[in-house]
Amino acid sequence: MSKENFTDWMGGTQQRSENALARLLPASGSIPAHLHEAMRYACLGGGKRVRPLLAFAAGELTNAPLAHLEIVACAVEMIHAYSLVHDDLPCMDNDVLRRGRPTCHIEFDEPTALLVGDSLQTLAFQLMAENPITEEPGRQLEMIALLARSSGSHGMAGGQAIDLASVGKSLNQPELELMHALKTGALIRAATLLGALCGTAMSTEQHAALDRFAKRAGLLFQVVDDILDCTASTATLGKTAGKDEAADKPTYVSLLGLQEAKAYAETLRQDALAALTPFGERARRLTELTDFICHRHF
Amino acid sequence: MSKENFTDWMGGTQQRSENALARLLPASGSIPAHLHEAMRYACLGGGKRVRPLLAFAAGELTNAPLAHLEIVACAVEMIHAYSLVHDDLPCMDNDVLRRGRPTCHIEFDEPTALLVGDSLQTLAFQLMAENPITEEPGRQLEMIALLARSSGSHGMAGGQAIDLASVGKSLNQPELELMHALKTGALIRAATLLGALCGTAMSTEQHAALDRFAKRAGLLFQVVDDILDCTASTATLGKTAGKDEAADKPTYVSLLGLQEAKAYAETLRQDALAALTPFGERARRLTELTDFICHRHF
Repeated sequence: MSKENFTDWMGGTQQRSENALARLLPASGSIPAHLHEAMRYACLGGGKRVRPLLAFAAGELTNAPLAHLEIVACAVEMIHAYSLVHDDLPCMDNDVLRRGRPTCHIEFDEPTALLVGDSLQTLAFQLMAENPITEEPGRQLEMIALLARSSGSHGMAGGQAIDLASVGKSLNQPELELMHALKTGALIRAATLLGALCGTAMSTEQHAALDRFAKRAGLLFQVVDDILDCTASTATLGKTAGKDEAADKPTYVSLLGLQEAKAYAETLRQDALAALTPFGERARRLTELTDFICHRHF
Repeated sequence: MSKENFTDWMGGTQQRSENALARLLPASGSIPAHLHEAMRYACLGGGKRVRPLLAFAAGELTNAPLAHLEIVACAVEMIHAYSLVHDDLPCMDNDVLRRGRPTCHIEFDEPTALLVGDSLQTLAFQLMAENPITEEPGRQLEMIALLARSSGSHGMAGGQAIDLASVGKSLNQPELELMHALKTGALIRAATLLGALCGTAMSTEQHAALDRFAKRAGLLFQVVDDILDCTASTATLGKTAGKDEAADKPTYVSLLGLQEAKAYAETLRQDALAALTPFGERARRLTELTDFICHRHF
């Protein structure tokens, strides 16, 4: 395990993720060049890389090889990037700003952005299938299935569908948690579990503990996001601020109020960290990362 | 191998595919119900099931179990269905009729149709990863990678991107063939190869021969489609007829003229069938299917 401080580890891991994405995405000159340039635009040059960071941090629990982690980190990030490109389309959130730059359909065009999302999803599964990410082919199939279940209609896309249906409606906390458990939580959980699955086998107890952590972390990330959406500026976020409230979308802040939402985030943080106890010192990066996610802007 | 006549085999295989899709798609009442109903609408109750038919016919070359073939046939058909739903969207072809019914975004709504396509793609990969489709996990990973390469930016979606860029332009025959080799040919080829890969191992020579067949069949299918688009009625096609010409899209008919396009289809048919020689009597269904595709409406 590396001895560097968290800030250096995070910067190095973000750079490693960026380099791996640049290498694994189709070359920008390759045919069809317009589509490939747009895919690179949608994935490179921005983003906090929370999901890759979680995968790399979880990989330390099982001594996972960096080469394996790069593949799963990029696959999860491509799924995330595809969802952002499609969410930003005019028929969905109709947003023009993402990571401080024009959204994909603004910078390119709408049909290209549609194909960018489609192709990034495909590439994620291609990477998971054609690269070594574990020594065991059977486990590799399980990892692909996990990524698919986390992304599809019972995962991220399903959460997006519930979100669409909820606009202007009053959700209670269990309903809101179900929506977020799918919309953002499922892929956060997948990133964490997949990182650990790249290394040595976990015991059933370790797997269950990591799953508890990953579910709490996913929820925590969403609560923090809702708080930031209401407290931070567009410039700080790099995306349009206050758009949840403008769209009359239910958030933890609208449900609980700002102070209660902050207190809930703190409870989730403590629960998440408690779940890491069985891993001892190996969980150092995951612990630091959780604290970072929780305290990044407030 | 079954002794029934081709028409009975085809009808039975289409019904088998429909039943398998109905079983493998999310239940219509399951949350999020609106999305799951729309996914079922987009996949069930219509379509010629050309790709499933190819997979089942190719499975006879290697004595593939029907249970394996059902999975790959449904996975390929879900990829095909996702591409149709996204192609029909207002920002792409903006079409209102498909398989004789309103397109998905007309019957439901545009954001839902976007998520339907996204989720069908995910489900295709999930099915390939979490079900037995071969005895060998290593080969299963290769099959997933083959489906991904055939669907993504170097396959079907890439062909769609070239198609978008070609509207109103004059393509020559090699350019047109590259576009179609990706847009429709790649998935037709994948359906055929995946069907055969569900069974006993092929020799390198057999694999190469089947690949030659599959590439010719994919091109043949597109040439026949272009001919039908210009000669058949909307009622016969179950989708808007003449839309290629209306959209000023290059087709084999616009490039070669109707008679030459028909002659070219016949040449492709003969080349495709010649490639099947090494398989002898086991290739009976593939041979019959090729003839059916070639002669279905003219």
